[in-house]
Amino acid sequence: MIQVVILGFGNVGSHLLDAFQATSAIEVVQVYSRSLPTSNEHERVSFIQDLSEVKKADVYLVAVPDDAIPEVTTQLPFKNRLVAHTSGGATIEAINEHQRRAVFYPLQSFSKHTAVDYRSVPICIEAEHKDDEQLLQKVGSSISDKVVGVSSEDRAQLHLAAVYVNNFVNHLYHISEGILAEKNLDFDLLKPLILETARKVQYITPSEAQTGPALRNDANTIKKHVALLEDEELKELYAFFTKAIQQ
Amino acid sequence: MIQVVILGFGNVGSHLLDAFQATSAIEVVQVYSRSLPTSNEHERVSFIQDLSEVKKADVYLVAVPDDAIPEVTTQLPFKNRLVAHTSGGATIEAINEHQRRAVFYPLQSFSKHTAVDYRSVPICIEAEHKDDEQLLQKVGSSISDKVVGVSSEDRAQLHLAAVYVNNFVNHLYHISEGILAEKNLDFDLLKPLILETARKVQYITPSEAQTGPALRNDANTIKKHVALLEDEELKELYAFFTKAIQQ
Repeated sequence: MIQVVILGFGNVGSHLLDAFQATSAIEVVQVYSRSLPTSNEHERVSFIQDLSEVKKADVYLVAVPDDAIPEVTTQLPFKNRLVAHTSGGATIEAINEHQRRAVFYPLQSFSKHTAVDYRSVPICIEAEHKDDEQLLQKVGSSISDKVVGVSSEDRAQLHLAAVYVNNFVNHLYHISEGILAEKNLDFDLLKPLILETARKVQYITPSEAQTGPALRNDANTIKKHVALLEDEELKELYAFFTKAIQQ
Repeated sequence: MIQVVILGFGNVGSHLLDAFQATSAIEVVQVYSRSLPTSNEHERVSFIQDLSEVKKADVYLVAVPDDAIPEVTTQLPFKNRLVAHTSGGATIEAINEHQRRAVFYPLQSFSKHTAVDYRSVPICIEAEHKDDEQLLQKVGSSISDKVVGVSSEDRAQLHLAAVYVNNFVNHLYHISEGILAEKNLDFDLLKPLILETARKVQYITPSEAQTGPALRNDANTIKKHVALLEDEELKELYAFFTKAIQQ
């Protein structure tokens, strides 16, 4: 059984805890969190609020905001242990240099109160030492079917691409919700289309999946759409995407 | 049994045929298509290539490109029958005025060779005559769990919003595929995130679902991302979404 301590109990930390608790390969020794959880659904785990109380474990997984990684890993009361952060955006060097540094990045967007099928979540790992990488491979495989070695440089690129398909896509959902709200139309009507759009690119490329007025060079519809938009920024965004799709 | 003729055999027409053939409530009398299907998977249906051969039916569903609707419905060798187009972008007036005009718009993106669960597809109907609307309600309910009356004006708004969550979202997938390709990274790594992003807004609002560097005002990550982007347009797009999410 591999012993793990989770440092940080936000979206990433809490979903990691849930995933580890569902497997017998991992023992979560402790979870560090500045505030203790109010619900008692995690009563099987020992929570600590003070880093000086942290126990011995095989791996320390740091699930705190990017800019807190240096501070938290500097406060750890030990040296030369395997400490992996879980961030897509931070380099491996964000971890204090007195530890055996590593990364354990689950490439998924976690929200409170929404369950995730962790087995489908790719976990990107990186480690300074070969045997640490092998251990992280084991930890990752216990909860996911896809564990891949990814350098800090490649991970930054992945994280950038992830922002487009997650945060920016979600903002387009938000925009269209607003377009419907103006006419008191129900956003529910778009939900099957949203799901299908995501599902299509699971097995065909985005280029193959593309449809719509821009691709068809349907100038009439494009003109009508731009006329319907009242917001200048939305008009510009519409023009940008239309041109980009046509290229 | 309601008798239907499908005029046009592109993505919408062929998926409609598949859906109708799976229900006993509808008989597809004929399908009009300029070119006959090469496969024999549709041998149970009578195909015609000449509109003068079109038989009597309760409903004629027009699934042709928007700008072909007036021409095709003008060539129909009869008057005063129920003729519904299936377009999100065209008004009900696109149909020749000698028919009982209507709309039967399945709000989904259909591609050849990708199956769709039609029961979840919202069908937006509109008709000049109340009894025609009731018949279209029956036709819709035979293949979908959600049939709603939507005016031409509201449908235009829906179609506009659909372009954002379908074509524009798909283009963001395309962009991120390109960002990964530059470093020989596999687009497969983003697929679970793409699916989860779409799944989340099925039960929480896009605002509630939003995460990421823009929302967190994580200036460090944003700066890193913009530096990673080499294309000027992608930089601008990144800046646009970041600002929009922060507002």
